[in-house]
Amino acid sequence: MTTPRNENDLIRRIEKRFRGARSKGLRLGLGDDAALWRPRPGCETVLTCDWFLEDCHFFREKHPADAVGWKCLARAVSDIAAMGGQPRCFLLSLALPRELAGSWFDGFLLGLRRASTALGCELAGGDTTRRDKVLIHITVIGEVRRRALLRSGARTGDAIFVSGTLGEAELGLRQLLHKQGIARPANQELRKHLYPQPRLALGRWLRDRQLATAAMDLSDGLSSDLRRLCLASGVGARIDFRSLPVTGRVPPDEARRLGLHGGDDYELLFTVAKKNLGKMPTQFGGVKLTRIGEITRSRPMVVDDAGKLQKLEARGWDPFRS
Amino acid sequence: MTTPRNENDLIRRIEKRFRGARSKGLRLGLGDDAALWRPRPGCETVLTCDWFLEDCHFFREKHPADAVGWKCLARAVSDIAAMGGQPRCFLLSLALPRELAGSWFDGFLLGLRRASTALGCELAGGDTTRRDKVLIHITVIGEVRRRALLRSGARTGDAIFVSGTLGEAELGLRQLLHKQGIARPANQELRKHLYPQPRLALGRWLRDRQLATAAMDLSDGLSSDLRRLCLASGVGARIDFRSLPVTGRVPPDEARRLGLHGGDDYELLFTVAKKNLGKMPTQFGGVKLTRIGEITRSRPMVVDDAGKLQKLEARGWDPFRS
Repeated sequence: MTTPRNENDLIRRIEKRFRGARSKGLRLGLGDDAALWRPRPGCETVLTCDWFLEDCHFFREKHPADAVGWKCLARAVSDIAAMGGQPRCFLLSLALPRELAGSWFDGFLLGLRRASTALGCELAGGDTTRRDKVLIHITVIGEVRRRALLRSGARTGDAIFVSGTLGEAELGLRQLLHKQGIARPANQELRKHLYPQPRLALGRWLRDRQLATAAMDLSDGLSSDLRRLCLASGVGARIDFRSLPVTGRVPPDEARRLGLHGGDDYELLFTVAKKNLGKMPTQFGGVKLTRIGEITRSRPMVVDDAGKLQKLEARGWDPFRS
Repeated sequence: MTTPRNENDLIRRIEKRFRGARSKGLRLGLGDDAALWRPRPGCETVLTCDWFLEDCHFFREKHPADAVGWKCLARAVSDIAAMGGQPRCFLLSLALPRELAGSWFDGFLLGLRRASTALGCELAGGDTTRRDKVLIHITVIGEVRRRALLRSGARTGDAIFVSGTLGEAELGLRQLLHKQGIARPANQELRKHLYPQPRLALGRWLRDRQLATAAMDLSDGLSSDLRRLCLASGVGARIDFRSLPVTGRVPPDEARRLGLHGGDDYELLFTVAKKNLGKMPTQFGGVKLTRIGEITRSRPMVVDDAGKLQKLEARGWDPFRS
């Protein structure tokens, strides 16, 4: 695969890789000034976007190119899952160094196309340019029927739930950083870090059944994201440290700290009114659902470790923290 | 203005600056996982996005911070103008060096807010992170009634028109690069480069009257953009070199070369069927409209300089050209 002679070359390779099925609502995709989109009757459009930047979110010499393609879309789609929506199409903006425009770019497109097919989210447009580092920006357009899941609906006394296992992706990142060369998805932690699975079916189910009073996805880590949910809802929270669903691959207390603060899990965090607790299963579609605490009236978030209460500081991922 | 302690600080400053009117179709803006959007009945949603990167699209030591804010939104909105649409809201993704998070950031937000108000395009969400260079990515969401203006409708014999004056922004860029320090909008060329005006009213008028068979905006330069319109329509073009509406500030032939290849004008390029030529005014809303050539059956684009024909190569802005 040769390097591109010009920007149109690059765009043609993207178009070729994504030729095929078109999302129903997408009236006009690649190749004009803008895309045209119309949601199904009764639906609202959900809009979200995410950076995915070399040397910040991924490393050229560590992350497989196809995992970069998969993950940049999957993590943006995760915001749609958190609203109980369905992804439909996306805009890919890409800045690429010339030396990566060959086989690296092919690997990237392969992973991106695989995510696009798996998540039902078609390429609708974007912008390309050249840069010394890979810059990726993804805008996802989805749709949701009435009553999208919001962050702001949690009420005092609601139970706090999470899906899946927390902290695995952070552990996978540590493994990846300590090894030489391109990582392989050799175990569950590395798979979770490299190829996250947005919880689309769970989000839709929670919305359809009107079971969640509030929901968001876990991208920066439970302690940081729960704080955002609490602020949006005007409430506090008490987390039961020992209830956290964490990995068994490291000692329990280390695993729980990873579960509290580790980023990149893309699990769902949601709250359920007490009266609906009986309707909550222990797993959904093979993903376990765990009650990890309770929404409180008082604002500071606390962790309850077998009766010992400690203030829970937001210590997840924050690019601006000193 | 102090540097931010964390990402939430930065987001709060953005929210504060954009507090106020909300776009009608925007059901949920900042502060949740995603924005919720619903176009007016009978309208489709128009989606477009653009990079605006330090050291590529602007220079920290040359461009005023408020011009960076204005231009990043104005140029993205220009794609909506080219479809005959109306911008409604936008997603701002921003990567910022810590040392610019103070007064530079305030200036940036001031210009962005001014563009947002002037263009009727409300902030709906985005993503922020830290980076050693400023990276800006804008996604604009607009709406358009049926029959959006597309690139693909030009037919043999259609007249080719452009709005405004071509090449001025490129001349403004040259002036800016040859001067020390932060540029001021001291003349028309610098104003055009720093504070471009998307041709929204013209685009809507062309769409409403169904006068344009094809349209796009001029971002990379006439020779590159016309080529895209010709490819999309499966036609060629003949441009009358001497008819190009160009600046009088440099010798005529230099001005015309700037007009052919200079980027960043954000004027509209459109085609009009011969039968409708009588309905075309010479100006619209104070912006002149100039007939510059004709769509041809034969594919290569040519320039006609007083009877002497030359092949027109796409020599506008291309980040990947060797």
